Amino acid sequence: MNQDTRRKLAGVSAATLTTVLFKRGFRNLFLQDVRPLNPNAPRMVGPAYTLRTIPAREDLDRLEAYLDPDHPQRKGVEECPPGAVFVIDSRGDARAASAGGILVTRLHRRGAAGIVTDGGFRDSPEIMELPFPAYHQRASAPTNLILHHCADLNLPIACGGVPVFPGDIMVGDAEGVVVIPADIAQAVADEAVEQTALEDFVQSRVAAGHTIRGLYPMTDAANCSLFEAWRREHGR
Amino acid sequence: MNQDTRRKLAGVSAATLTTVLFKRGFRNLFLQDVRPLNPNAPRMVGPAYTLRTIPAREDLDRLEAYLDPDHPQRKGVEECPPGAVFVIDSRGDARAASAGGILVTRLHRRGAAGIVTDGGFRDSPEIMELPFPAYHQRASAPTNLILHHCADLNLPIACGGVPVFPGDIMVGDAEGVVVIPADIAQAVADEAVEQTALEDFVQSRVAAGHTIRGLYPMTDAANCSLFEAWRREHGR
Amino acid sequence: MNQDTRRKLAGVSAATLTTVLFKRGFRNLFLQDVRPLNPNAPRMVGPAYTLRTIPAREDLDRLEAYLDPDHPQRKGVEECPPGAVFVIDSRGDARAASAGGILVTRLHRRGAAGIVTDGGFRDSPEIMELPFPAYHQRASAPTNLILHHCADLNLPIACGGVPVFPGDIMVGDAEGVVVIPADIAQAVADEAVEQTALEDFVQSRVAAGHTIRGLYPMTDAANCSLFEAWRREHGR
Amino acid sequence: MNQDTRRKLAGVSAATLTTVLFKRGFRNLFLQDVRPLNPNAPRMVGPAYTLRTIPAREDLDRLEAYLDPDHPQRKGVEECPPGAVFVIDSRGDARAASAGGILVTRLHRRGAAGIVTDGGFRDSPEIMELPFPAYHQRASAPTNLILHHCADLNLPIACGGVPVFPGDIMVGDAEGVVVIPADIAQAVADEAVEQTALEDFVQSRVAAGHTIRGLYPMTDAANCSLFEAWRREHGR
Amino acid sequence: MNQDTRRKLAGVSAATLTTVLFKRGFRNLFLQDVRPLNPNAPRMVGPAYTLRTIPAREDLDRLEAYLDPDHPQRKGVEECPPGAVFVIDSRGDARAASAGGILVTRLHRRGAAGIVTDGGFRDSPEIMELPFPAYHQRASAPTNLILHHCADLNLPIACGGVPVFPGDIMVGDAEGVVVIPADIAQAVADEAVEQTALEDFVQSRVAAGHTIRGLYPMTDAANCSLFEAWRREHGR
Amino acid sequence: MNQDTRRKLAGVSAATLTTVLFKRGFRNLFLQDVRPLNPNAPRMVGPAYTLRTIPAREDLDRLEAYLDPDHPQRKGVEECPPGAVFVIDSRGDARAASAGGILVTRLHRRGAAGIVTDGGFRDSPEIMELPFPAYHQRASAPTNLILHHCADLNLPIACGGVPVFPGDIMVGDAEGVVVIPADIAQAVADEAVEQTALEDFVQSRVAAGHTIRGLYPMTDAANCSLFEAWRREHGR
Repeated sequence: MNQDTRRKLAGVSAATLTTVLFKRGFRNLFLQDVRPLNPNAPRMVGPAYTLRTIPAREDLDRLEAYLDPDHPQRKGVEECPPGAVFVIDSRGDARAASAGGILVTRLHRRGAAGIVTDGGFRDSPEIMELPFPAYHQRASAPTNLILHHCADLNLPIACGGVPVFPGDIMVGDAEGVVVIPADIAQAVADEAVEQTALEDFVQSRVAAGHTIRGLYPMTDAANCSLFEAWRREHGR
Repeated sequence: MNQDTRRKLAGVSAATLTTVLFKRGFRNLFLQDVRPLNPNAPRMVGPAYTLRTIPAREDLDRLEAYLDPDHPQRKGVEECPPGAVFVIDSRGDARAASAGGILVTRLHRRGAAGIVTDGGFRDSPEIMELPFPAYHQRASAPTNLILHHCADLNLPIACGGVPVFPGDIMVGDAEGVVVIPADIAQAVADEAVEQTALEDFVQSRVAAGHTIRGLYPMTDAANCSLFEAWRREHGR
Repeated sequence: MNQDTRRKLAGVSAATLTTVLFKRGFRNLFLQDVRPLNPNAPRMVGPAYTLRTIPAREDLDRLEAYLDPDHPQRKGVEECPPGAVFVIDSRGDARAASAGGILVTRLHRRGAAGIVTDGGFRDSPEIMELPFPAYHQRASAPTNLILHHCADLNLPIACGGVPVFPGDIMVGDAEGVVVIPADIAQAVADEAVEQTALEDFVQSRVAAGHTIRGLYPMTDAANCSLFEAWRREHGR
Repeated sequence: MNQDTRRKLAGVSAATLTTVLFKRGFRNLFLQDVRPLNPNAPRMVGPAYTLRTIPAREDLDRLEAYLDPDHPQRKGVEECPPGAVFVIDSRGDARAASAGGILVTRLHRRGAAGIVTDGGFRDSPEIMELPFPAYHQRASAPTNLILHHCADLNLPIACGGVPVFPGDIMVGDAEGVVVIPADIAQAVADEAVEQTALEDFVQSRVAAGHTIRGLYPMTDAANCSLFEAWRREHGR
Repeated sequence: MNQDTRRKLAGVSAATLTTVLFKRGFRNLFLQDVRPLNPNAPRMVGPAYTLRTIPAREDLDRLEAYLDPDHPQRKGVEECPPGAVFVIDSRGDARAASAGGILVTRLHRRGAAGIVTDGGFRDSPEIMELPFPAYHQRASAPTNLILHHCADLNLPIACGGVPVFPGDIMVGDAEGVVVIPADIAQAVADEAVEQTALEDFVQSRVAAGHTIRGLYPMTDAANCSLFEAWRREHGR
Repeated sequence: MNQDTRRKLAGVSAATLTTVLFKRGFRNLFLQDVRPLNPNAPRMVGPAYTLRTIPAREDLDRLEAYLDPDHPQRKGVEECPPGAVFVIDSRGDARAASAGGILVTRLHRRGAAGIVTDGGFRDSPEIMELPFPAYHQRASAPTNLILHHCADLNLPIACGGVPVFPGDIMVGDAEGVVVIPADIAQAVADEAVEQTALEDFVQSRVAAGHTIRGLYPMTDAANCSLFEAWRREHGR
């Protein structure tokens, strides 16, 4: 993704993005039941690099599985491109971990933009301390071998009830994660910047005690003029 | 509601109120799976002003719906009386937002006593910063049009699995929200103040290392005497 | 339990313990959907003392039930041995409380090592302030009589989907609670200390920017040598 | 609704109707988790007459409530127009009944076209014997007063996760129930008859051993010719 | 239980019993999500004989566990008194079986009155063929050792979200199972016979085309007279 | 798979197979919440041919998607080998159909051994009439495009919470579906035939009124002798 898009998306909220996507007919691109471990971590923006799991099988998912250098979880953590978001399809199952502190730290050190699972992370108290955006359903101490068989890398997956294709742009804030289809990321970013200016203006008016009537939506021409003035004043 | 009731209810906990209500035969007046966004917000006390939703329909729930000045959500936010609690029946569905930062701010500025939904709010990081009691199930960024059709105002509703009639008294603390039927609010408030005095005394004894035997419940006459003395001492 | 085991278990994480237990064939000893009220409370270690509940019945579960000095909840709180963990089988149902601030304070004062339920606690804002490890599913204000009939003490129970036998060792950290069968507690503690040393070394290497290849798992002999040196240096 | 629409809708399946509605942008008009008690009952077609419930309250929902001649459940059963479908919003809660054999029999005798709830019916073994379309989630013996407070009649409701407006056309077959917005019922009926002809032809070809390639969807012109001949032959 | 009570309870429905129990203040005595395998089996009436399970543990729940002649499941099947109902607390978990065809057949041959679990049975196609009342949540092939550890016999248990004390009277029909506290079984049976006569009369009037107004509830004196006549005529 | 294995597996139950697999350490190979549409259909035995879905996306999942001859659902139905079982990963989501009557008929005509989804089928009343084993969670009329994006063919998938690798042997009876890892299918089939003989003998003894003590498990040598005689007599 280009740096302009990345910069723009880092300045808009997940909520605003869902509105922009809704205008284009998308109703299901916010990950359900996935939340930030550290709400004070930086905003997350980056293309999806995906790991897919299926339920574990006792004969395959033993500790020895990690001796295989091509084990998808371990391979993925070392090959996820800098700037990308590592997204794990854990089938919404948080009864065992999707990953833990060591792998999350490694991704952080390798320059990944964040990590997302619809399951849970172990070592969550440590991960909460990292200045690295990580999103999951809930903390989950058990080792992933109990429940998850890592199947493959960089295929389309489900995460949080949402379709995620490799290369789709993941944006996360303190509220959660939204997925933007790769081919419209630039256009959505542009429109979201505009939408954010509008919402910030509306919010400032409402905080100052004004009614939402004629303001939200902006059906009163007087408010349109005030908005134009506000944009000039704030350079937005 | 009168100011004496409001003052008394602001000084008792949701937990104590459920005990008082249980004594009167009420078993289901605590909202399930509804929690405060800002546990440090002021205590919430006020009569319910209700908004009811049903599932959205694609031909009705478009952005243009808000152009209608009688759209129930927008109308309700402007008409909810000062001192009242805005309560939304979202059918327990938090996959899209029930409302967002702008509307919550408007309610706060208009003097509402709080806002409650059994769905979720968007812009939740901003709402958490407001000195305004807001309660939901979980954060939810998607715009409400995706899932919720606002049907009408001030009818009896379900919220968090509990019946809420307009005018019922909503009381919220850092633990959650309890509903008091309007016709018994004064009596419940009076009894809850008594019950709170008792519990505070018991808690102080237990914190000082005393056994709960004969104290909780207070079957030992010696404890009754101590309690009377404690009430005099603390003016309660 | 002996003090050496207690000390060792207080220094390892729930996550590490699930790995050690998985090596021994145990897949289901981490309590699901049970979380700390106060993540900054001390680590919890102690043998389980259990309370079992079944659904309440209106003719039995009235306030007068507590007048019985043998009511299992009240009796248990006074008889739970110092150093033990009070574990409540609430059938995973948090719609009413399993216990409240007074009983939790009493357990704390009596020297219990912690309290766990797969339901919810009332007075949770107060409990969060105690320097005492308490774990539940979610806050729940309603009095327990609405939903829970306390059946008996110190029988094997289910808690968080996990079997808990009286005397099993409960270990809780900021992530959650793991149960260790009593007869292997010492061996598991020993192995977990070793495993923790290994993981701390690996984590320090990864934090310093090294690859996980050959390190995690440690298939590279060079890393083994580094680990040995690290152990000597850190006295572990 | 006119008799032509009724006749046409009685001859098409719920599945086919969802396809026709999907083409018009409707994604959520099939009632989830609602199934026929008697799969051999006649097809159900008729406009919705709605009853709305909220959770019961112990002081209001006593047996004496039925002494009120305006109790919405009892009033609705006597006032539901012949040919209409009685649709109950039970908030998806089947832990107590929405209605029982006596009321369902009364509706049948009064000429209603069917009854639907997203809760459960009691006396279900008797209802299964009636030649009357009835749909629910699962059998539920407990009297409705335990859980449901009947709030009002003929307002828009939620049922099975779907919006139902009074007058919308309910169509039920052995698979379940679909809702057609009133204003498009005629057009949807017309299109569904066409779609059914197409699907019946396709099904007959597939049953005869032909490939779906070029047939489903019908991209092969040869199949289009065969279909035209089939329509003439079968008078459809 | 005496034979008069047994005979009376065999002639009334689970639905009617919940009404009689509701009049006495009981709101939660119908087993939720528990259904008959064979709706054509005889009516089930008998005192509860209980088996309690907790989650399985890998070191205890091996096939060898059955070598112990005191294994509670096997012991219970051989010791359940003739005429009693074998009730299993499976914690509502049907992912593995609570019992299978062999044990159910054995209970049938030993003269038990029925078997109930809130989990599932394996060999369900065979059990459906037996002229023996069996109730579960859903069919479940996996052997119970995977999930259930049989803990003890004849203690109070939860089943289907309902409290069941040994000796309580279990009554099951084609709709489901209701529990009657032992000490009121005779009185409830008597009242249910009366209630059934009333409901049968009402149902016959409604089936004949009469309104429910003044009939259900019977506020019209004319209907009371008709009812008296009907009782004399039918000897009820 | 060879014909001997197929024949043997066609003669044993899903329940028996879970026992044989449990002895080998497999605890999770029975599909949860997946049931036969037609319990009288033939037994299902065959290697898995898999279709994977992710959540639908509005811009991709339109009716035009089927114009693509490589659409995985349509392609898979035409390419699934005779004798194979078509297994669909629907992420356990039955809110829209996984497939319908036309595709199921086509698979039947092409000689497939059965079809399985952990979602739902539409046109279920028709599918129930086919002499073809089909398994799903529940009937679901809505077209699959609403919810399911068909991603790819013949990769490892999750179905009913169980890992299914292409080529694994699917066995279904009137109770449900079990998956046997391909490499042990022959051995499991052999052992299951032995286990079935044992269980049939035990069942015949129990049906004749004998105790399970010493019989199940068979710790009494006298029973072992009887079993040997029974095997000779019945040629098993």
